[in-house]
Amino acid sequence: MRKKAAVLMGSDSDLPVVQGAIRTLKDFGVETEVHIMSAHRTPHKVMEFASGARENGFGVIICAAGKAAHLAGVVASHTTLPVIGIPMKSSALDGLDALLSTVQMPKGIPVATVAIDGADNAALLAVQILAVNDEELAKKLQDMRTKMTAEIAEKDKKLQEKL
Amino acid sequence: MRKKAAVLMGSDSDLPVVQGAIRTLKDFGVETEVHIMSAHRTPHKVMEFASGARENGFGVIICAAGKAAHLAGVVASHTTLPVIGIPMKSSALDGLDALLSTVQMPKGIPVATVAIDGADNAALLAVQILAVNDEELAKKLQDMRTKMTAEIAEKDKKLQEKL
Amino acid sequence: MRKKAAVLMGSDSDLPVVQGAIRTLKDFGVETEVHIMSAHRTPHKVMEFASGARENGFGVIICAAGKAAHLAGVVASHTTLPVIGIPMKSSALDGLDALLSTVQMPKGIPVATVAIDGADNAALLAVQILAVNDEELAKKLQDMRTKMTAEIAEKDKKLQEKL
Amino acid sequence: MRKKAAVLMGSDSDLPVVQGAIRTLKDFGVETEVHIMSAHRTPHKVMEFASGARENGFGVIICAAGKAAHLAGVVASHTTLPVIGIPMKSSALDGLDALLSTVQMPKGIPVATVAIDGADNAALLAVQILAVNDEELAKKLQDMRTKMTAEIAEKDKKLQEKL
Amino acid sequence: MRKKAAVLMGSDSDLPVVQGAIRTLKDFGVETEVHIMSAHRTPHKVMEFASGARENGFGVIICAAGKAAHLAGVVASHTTLPVIGIPMKSSALDGLDALLSTVQMPKGIPVATVAIDGADNAALLAVQILAVNDEELAKKLQDMRTKMTAEIAEKDKKLQEKL
Amino acid sequence: MRKKAAVLMGSDSDLPVVQGAIRTLKDFGVETEVHIMSAHRTPHKVMEFASGARENGFGVIICAAGKAAHLAGVVASHTTLPVIGIPMKSSALDGLDALLSTVQMPKGIPVATVAIDGADNAALLAVQILAVNDEELAKKLQDMRTKMTAEIAEKDKKLQEKL
Amino acid sequence: MRKKAAVLMGSDSDLPVVQGAIRTLKDFGVETEVHIMSAHRTPHKVMEFASGARENGFGVIICAAGKAAHLAGVVASHTTLPVIGIPMKSSALDGLDALLSTVQMPKGIPVATVAIDGADNAALLAVQILAVNDEELAKKLQDMRTKMTAEIAEKDKKLQEKL
Amino acid sequence: MRKKAAVLMGSDSDLPVVQGAIRTLKDFGVETEVHIMSAHRTPHKVMEFASGARENGFGVIICAAGKAAHLAGVVASHTTLPVIGIPMKSSALDGLDALLSTVQMPKGIPVATVAIDGADNAALLAVQILAVNDEELAKKLQDMRTKMTAEIAEKDKKLQEKL
Repeated sequence: MRKKAAVLMGSDSDLPVVQGAIRTLKDFGVETEVHIMSAHRTPHKVMEFASGARENGFGVIICAAGKAAHLAGVVASHTTLPVIGIPMKSSALDGLDALLSTVQMPKGIPVATVAIDGADNAALLAVQILAVNDEELAKKLQDMRTKMTAEIAEKDKKLQEKL
Repeated sequence: MRKKAAVLMGSDSDLPVVQGAIRTLKDFGVETEVHIMSAHRTPHKVMEFASGARENGFGVIICAAGKAAHLAGVVASHTTLPVIGIPMKSSALDGLDALLSTVQMPKGIPVATVAIDGADNAALLAVQILAVNDEELAKKLQDMRTKMTAEIAEKDKKLQEKL
Repeated sequence: MRKKAAVLMGSDSDLPVVQGAIRTLKDFGVETEVHIMSAHRTPHKVMEFASGARENGFGVIICAAGKAAHLAGVVASHTTLPVIGIPMKSSALDGLDALLSTVQMPKGIPVATVAIDGADNAALLAVQILAVNDEELAKKLQDMRTKMTAEIAEKDKKLQEKL
Repeated sequence: MRKKAAVLMGSDSDLPVVQGAIRTLKDFGVETEVHIMSAHRTPHKVMEFASGARENGFGVIICAAGKAAHLAGVVASHTTLPVIGIPMKSSALDGLDALLSTVQMPKGIPVATVAIDGADNAALLAVQILAVNDEELAKKLQDMRTKMTAEIAEKDKKLQEKL
Repeated sequence: MRKKAAVLMGSDSDLPVVQGAIRTLKDFGVETEVHIMSAHRTPHKVMEFASGARENGFGVIICAAGKAAHLAGVVASHTTLPVIGIPMKSSALDGLDALLSTVQMPKGIPVATVAIDGADNAALLAVQILAVNDEELAKKLQDMRTKMTAEIAEKDKKLQEKL
Repeated sequence: MRKKAAVLMGSDSDLPVVQGAIRTLKDFGVETEVHIMSAHRTPHKVMEFASGARENGFGVIICAAGKAAHLAGVVASHTTLPVIGIPMKSSALDGLDALLSTVQMPKGIPVATVAIDGADNAALLAVQILAVNDEELAKKLQDMRTKMTAEIAEKDKKLQEKL
Repeated sequence: MRKKAAVLMGSDSDLPVVQGAIRTLKDFGVETEVHIMSAHRTPHKVMEFASGARENGFGVIICAAGKAAHLAGVVASHTTLPVIGIPMKSSALDGLDALLSTVQMPKGIPVATVAIDGADNAALLAVQILAVNDEELAKKLQDMRTKMTAEIAEKDKKLQEKL
Repeated sequence: MRKKAAVLMGSDSDLPVVQGAIRTLKDFGVETEVHIMSAHRTPHKVMEFASGARENGFGVIICAAGKAAHLAGVVASHTTLPVIGIPMKSSALDGLDALLSTVQMPKGIPVATVAIDGADNAALLAVQILAVNDEELAKKLQDMRTKMTAEIAEKDKKLQEKL
């Protein structure tokens, strides 16, 4: 049976960006749970969720957080499931702080980091991970690529007419 | 049957760092192929390998590259398998260029980025991905965590004696 | 016969900035083709265009891309024509990521990089390249400089009246 | 009774720098416990220590960690004692990652951050905190300042002779 | 008797951000004095205030300044009380200059630095410092944490209904 | 007749890096003049050389300079030939200053910038520019690519034996 | 007789910021000439002005430029008068490029650099330089300080009433 | 009578770099006083020196400091003489912190900033300031330029023989 995906965000202000990930997971038919929980403000909740994630049927966990973004790292320290980190732009430093806080993890506890505010790609990466042993999902990913290529070809064609 | 891992590096000068990934994958009993191929200097080789990776039995591809590190992105554009990028430190800018070139991927083609020179974590992430539906690997990951915890406890104990 | 210029952009959202390059090339009477194609989303298209560019009569290729900007590098890996890269500002990091992804190319495959969002200068550089053996174009470049100098002198004169 | 200080470090490789803090606390006669514990590799240990720190007689906790330095933030999320963070230089980015991961804490959970590798100042800050209601410690701090001023005056005097 | 807190800012344009600190201190019932004084434009005022702060009943001093933010460092050089620095975002470099000018203090004179524009956290840190030996304040801090946790749980609950 | 290349450097301390460019140009049989001249210390020499470059038979000018690297920009302001800038690493900021000083040219005067210390690529770019209308040079560039591909294939083969 | 000040700017778009310098110089009664001239677009004009500045009665030259800001450096290479550089914010990188291009001058040719967009301070520095041997100007500078101190005291007083 | 120059440094560890400034001032025959004094560790000494500098015959003050480099700013707040700041490289961040702490001064109190570790240029700038109304010094500056030009011409000549 296909594993579920979880999408965690440190603050409800992250929702507008994180929506991109939720929608993409839904488009691929991946069952998804979404939660607001903070590494710093609700550490017990985070620990509890991460520790039980594998036995609760999750296959991958996406974490979105800004500034000194510890959420993905803290989740990763409590599970051996792959954890994907989305550094949020929401800071004076435009997300450079969140990027470094997410990607520069010490030896032993990796976080799969995507671009600043890269919620769509986080979801695609989650789907790719679940698709490693799932022909149907792999097929859908390939279809999306084909569609993407066609869309750009279409845009190029329209550009030729416009110029 | 368990999928294989691939480890690609842009230059043979990356090997000393990349060794950490090869060794870790071996420790976990993951069958691994290792290749030197460059997104810029051998683009056809890269395209050929990436395009055929899924049907050739690979489940995950690790790419190490420095400077304007395009290897992971180019590989990711030719496969829907999860691609892990290791930004190499080998540049005047100490890997900041490689980090941004690897992680800031545009919408549609994600790269799972780890820390600069984070070869061990790249391998652990690859194992985590393969372990999503593999009880045996998941068990080994948990064992490694337990061992890691014990080692630090041991170091702390020794420190107490020393102080 | 004068070689053509190509202007490639990774996304149609780059068009407003890239227009500056198209207009400048037109002003100099350089025949120009413009395409939307993405190193990551339409890699085959990019490869095909770049591989055939020299025999299709192109003399220089301008590539505009943002974030982990691989377009110029990928094009450069498939041709020995001079490739000019415009790093686009369109990212959380205001184009620093695109700049480093474009300019820090590894040994063997250069990309002639201009300023972030520097579309006009990319076109001027393309004209300068085509003008190396083209007296008429060289003359036009010199005329533009003379005009530019006169314009600034005019502005300075007006400033004196205003102060 | 005077509260104790704790000095936590993420890895035993941090000890040479952290020694500066231990020595300074000792010089001021502050009772100090030192531990190696990692936010990511021994999260339960960290939580346990931090949660019980106030009732175990601690008044301040110093945390040293490098790269995506989460130790201080995780400790701070489990206690309301003041937590001081030392960003360690030990990374490809020379500690800029650790600095941002330590200082850019979200609203609600502050970390008192000192300079990269600033172990001595972390200890002095800890002493200053304990000295808010402790005349004896405050006196010692003032004495140290007086001595520091005298030392620089002495160096300046020697310099005059040398020039 | 409980010590007072001081909040100093380099310019009245810092007030909108600094208000967060003033309000938080008031919420915790900490007596607070607020002043506009500049390290560079009113150096004597700053020196006078800082030198007398301990004997005037202060326990902690918060300093907010932007650009080459010297206020916290200059105050810290004239007192042995703990000094908390808030780097203000108000500059072309979005506060990176103020952050480095505040946190990178030389050996001997620490400044407890919080996030860019982190006025609320500066106040919380001040309260934590005053609470080291103050059961009542410590209790209030714990209550705030409990409330914060509840608020996030509430937000998560609402999110579940919305999705 | 084939145009000549010029290689200018701001200081003789740049020679060890710049040698890579001189050697590459020689390998391609491009006649090359090399000079030490500084935008700031010998401005008249620079102006004189740049102003006369086209009529003296040059087709492209490579400029290497470090720190506030103005050489390429100043040369470009006195000629309409394509000017290639090599930002030198030789500074406290590891060449980031030289990169920005070289690449961020204002509208009207482009500089074709290559990687920090990227002397070999500067020379290759110069050859590519001269090869736009030169079949023989274009052939040599293609041969170099073929050789480069073969070398990497050879390294990959050796790696397989070693592993 | 008192020497004149010159204010040069690379583009008329710099005028709104540069106005601050012009006004300040006027307030101090320093005779000032203002010109638009560009290091890259009108290099001869710049050279001519700078070379003759001392004998034309100037004592100090202020130069404002953005991006790869070479104006101050080029002026400094043609005169031994003190040259003050104002790095303009007008770029994708918010003036960091202009700052480094202005301040990181090589040995032999200094530029006195002020803050990004720091036009007022550039003018004050110019006045300070002219005031080294000018009692009247020195007196005015001291008066401005006294006034500045009074203004802040006034603001602080008002703040006390408001709180 | 010619005014004196002062060279202040925050720590005796800065002396090896600062020697360059002392030697240059001596070469130009400018009477110079050198002192070790720290904005943070000997604030009273700094204030006393700066406040009396003008009436004690100084015309310009050079200040070298690293990390959160406040020395130049603090000196500038106590005098209206021109103050030149040398940001020292001595930190984990290679002097970027010192550069921003020195150059980004708030409105009202300028610091004339030179390159990181730019001690020679700081001295030359000091001489240029003293030479505004001093024919003899101005002549020496011009002679140095002439000599510098000749030296580079000589190096270029030697290079031609070597190639």
